[in-house]
Amino acid sequence: MNIDMGNATADAVSAGLDESELQSLDDRVNDAHARIQRGRDGDEFGYAALNLPARTDPAEILEAVGPFRDSAAVLTVGIGGSALGAATITSALGPSETDHYVLDNVDPERTTAVLESLPLDEAVVNVVSKSGTTAETLATFLVVRDAMEKAGVDWTERTIVTTGSEGPLHSLAVEHDLPALDVPAGVPGRFSALSAVGLVPAAVCGLDIEAVLAGGQTGSESLTGSLFDCPAYAYGAISYALDKRGIGTNVMMPYAEGLEVFAEWFAQLWAESLGKDGQGQTPVRALGATDQHSQLQLYRAGPRDKLVTLVRPTGRDDRAIPETEIPELQYLGGKTLGTLLDAEFEATEASLAAADQPNVRIELERLDAHSLGKLLYDMEAACIMAGELYGVETFTQPAVEWGKRAARGLLGAGEFEEADAVSDKHRLLVE
Amino acid sequence: MNIDMGNATADAVSAGLDESELQSLDDRVNDAHARIQRGRDGDEFGYAALNLPARTDPAEILEAVGPFRDSAAVLTVGIGGSALGAATITSALGPSETDHYVLDNVDPERTTAVLESLPLDEAVVNVVSKSGTTAETLATFLVVRDAMEKAGVDWTERTIVTTGSEGPLHSLAVEHDLPALDVPAGVPGRFSALSAVGLVPAAVCGLDIEAVLAGGQTGSESLTGSLFDCPAYAYGAISYALDKRGIGTNVMMPYAEGLEVFAEWFAQLWAESLGKDGQGQTPVRALGATDQHSQLQLYRAGPRDKLVTLVRPTGRDDRAIPETEIPELQYLGGKTLGTLLDAEFEATEASLAAADQPNVRIELERLDAHSLGKLLYDMEAACIMAGELYGVETFTQPAVEWGKRAARGLLGAGEFEEADAVSDKHRLLVE
Repeated sequence: MNIDMGNATADAVSAGLDESELQSLDDRVNDAHARIQRGRDGDEFGYAALNLPARTDPAEILEAVGPFRDSAAVLTVGIGGSALGAATITSALGPSETDHYVLDNVDPERTTAVLESLPLDEAVVNVVSKSGTTAETLATFLVVRDAMEKAGVDWTERTIVTTGSEGPLHSLAVEHDLPALDVPAGVPGRFSALSAVGLVPAAVCGLDIEAVLAGGQTGSESLTGSLFDCPAYAYGAISYALDKRGIGTNVMMPYAEGLEVFAEWFAQLWAESLGKDGQGQTPVRALGATDQHSQLQLYRAGPRDKLVTLVRPTGRDDRAIPETEIPELQYLGGKTLGTLLDAEFEATEASLAAADQPNVRIELERLDAHSLGKLLYDMEAACIMAGELYGVETFTQPAVEWGKRAARGLLGAGEFEEADAVSDKHRLLVE
Repeated sequence: MNIDMGNATADAVSAGLDESELQSLDDRVNDAHARIQRGRDGDEFGYAALNLPARTDPAEILEAVGPFRDSAAVLTVGIGGSALGAATITSALGPSETDHYVLDNVDPERTTAVLESLPLDEAVVNVVSKSGTTAETLATFLVVRDAMEKAGVDWTERTIVTTGSEGPLHSLAVEHDLPALDVPAGVPGRFSALSAVGLVPAAVCGLDIEAVLAGGQTGSESLTGSLFDCPAYAYGAISYALDKRGIGTNVMMPYAEGLEVFAEWFAQLWAESLGKDGQGQTPVRALGATDQHSQLQLYRAGPRDKLVTLVRPTGRDDRAIPETEIPELQYLGGKTLGTLLDAEFEATEASLAAADQPNVRIELERLDAHSLGKLLYDMEAACIMAGELYGVETFTQPAVEWGKRAARGLLGAGEFEEADAVSDKHRLLVE
């Protein structure tokens, strides 16, 4: 990726940074980069994620999925970081002959619908949980396994596991001799796309996971101590600096449907890493050009609190718009859908700047495996840079524990005082 | 729907309203309700949307789609309000034997992928544009029509049009004798779900559009002058009041995958109606329980600027979690996915309140046609109520015109000075 942050400078918008402010920010980026490098060198928790492209062995993944290549479908059972990276990669690089289904929730009606539409005897189930105890994932896996058995399918022949070095999922894999891959140590789920966690379904689908990792490696080699020549750090630093000036919302708006899930992946990365100590931009997932007809009114005329991150591939497999007999539409005839989409991208970017709303432009050459790998890597590095600047613990997610304990208490899995708060709820019912 | 706003009161959270504040808010609701009623009685622009359930004739829609009932697929070509309501209804009430595809963008790769996966000779194309000139919709329609011709399919035999009383799409329907339905007069696209705009694909899919409209009618009859006995107004008023206390983000978080598109529909309704004059909550689409593993960290520990709107059906087609031999998971065995989802819902709600983050609970009896119709109606009424309280022009979207003119200029459709701003862009490129 490269980034054009002209519309986040004081020349373009009132919340933007001027030259001297960019210089002081760059000094801080330099210090933070040194901290990040130390973390990488010492393989410290979280920072180790930046070493994944060199460390993930694609051959190991390809060997594990070998028997399942070109299955009719792969069904990922996981939640959060155990599903989003994988879904991002297959949706950006697909469609392929193998359909990728994801069960990343415990909605019974959706679960039933997916199980009824899947050819269970031609599918492979990909279960992903670092601890092997994630309630949603394991409950769903129990349901899926049962459905396979009832359909006369030997689940031990059609299940791949990606998990940590211990826990019930690990034991299950050992017991039944399932193909098993490791969740890399020292890497939170949301930073694990460039490991088996993100790459197994892509490998089943026959996508080029080596190129994804090579793209990540290019990102790894592009990290330098200055935001002026490192797109990843530029993005992390400018997002942070704008947030500190009241730009508390970050709208991730790709102009490519293949990146719709990427925007969700980004939202997890940003929210769970930076949403701490009363700080953190709120990520908002959008899609160009569609959301011009939904959200743009607010982005232009609502509160001035939004950074809009516009993303596009500069090359696409384009499609001509046929010439037409309809007079009002003749200006479209002979152009392409890509031309129209690009015009809308540039028009939206200019319209935001004209309304004094900061925005940045991120471009990839094409939406291919290499560019995608670099995009994912760069966004992780951007997030880690932002975390350093905020001074938060980027790699933990302590605030979700309260709810997990409350839920376990409600389900009778032990005594948890948080569960008591549920029954003490204040009520004001209108019906 | 009913609403429990206990966790938006001063008893529960510091941004919440106390009893006297709720009383003054209710006085304003009473005045605004009178204004809304006058608008409805006079069929004024926008307010007319609240009369749709009584005015939309399901028989007319069923007659128009009659020849296409039980087609293999229906392909909606539209954008924004011309697509989101229809997609919301079929995804909430599906799956059905007929697949509903939506092309609501001009991404060439996605367009090609959809056209290649569709059985064009067994599909019906549903083109929706009020003006008949929406660039994205008409460009896509030209592409789709061309693909049908190339596949040897007579497009005039497999196309339904929903449009205004004039314009090129209307002329095309007349010329080729296509089944055509009216976009209702006086109703902006985002308020048109309960008309032909939202109901045609549902009717093709064999869903119960009469029950959807009956649910809307129940909503219509439930509008009273007090937030204490009108859930729709309660929701609009509390959202507005919290926004004025710094709660500038509204997270719409259904615990039902069937309502995932509903959250997008809501985001358009809220953003485009209320994002004006520097005001308006930023809607954020989320999904329970999935986003507990993605966004909840931010919602609990980030800035205190979020209202989380938790939505669930209280009844579902549930699914048992099988008993298991795995000790760590035995607390799940014998329960149901629905029980787990409900526990997570209640745990998340309590965990937000414990972190001093306001939230409301909206419940439906089931995710069925009647409840869905009422939910859509109530949210529209909530939005109109909020618009009255903000004092904005709820039914227009003037800020999007700038970008439309710029794009037309870039495409050579005329001289538009906005297009000049595009080439004058400030640049600061990092690569």
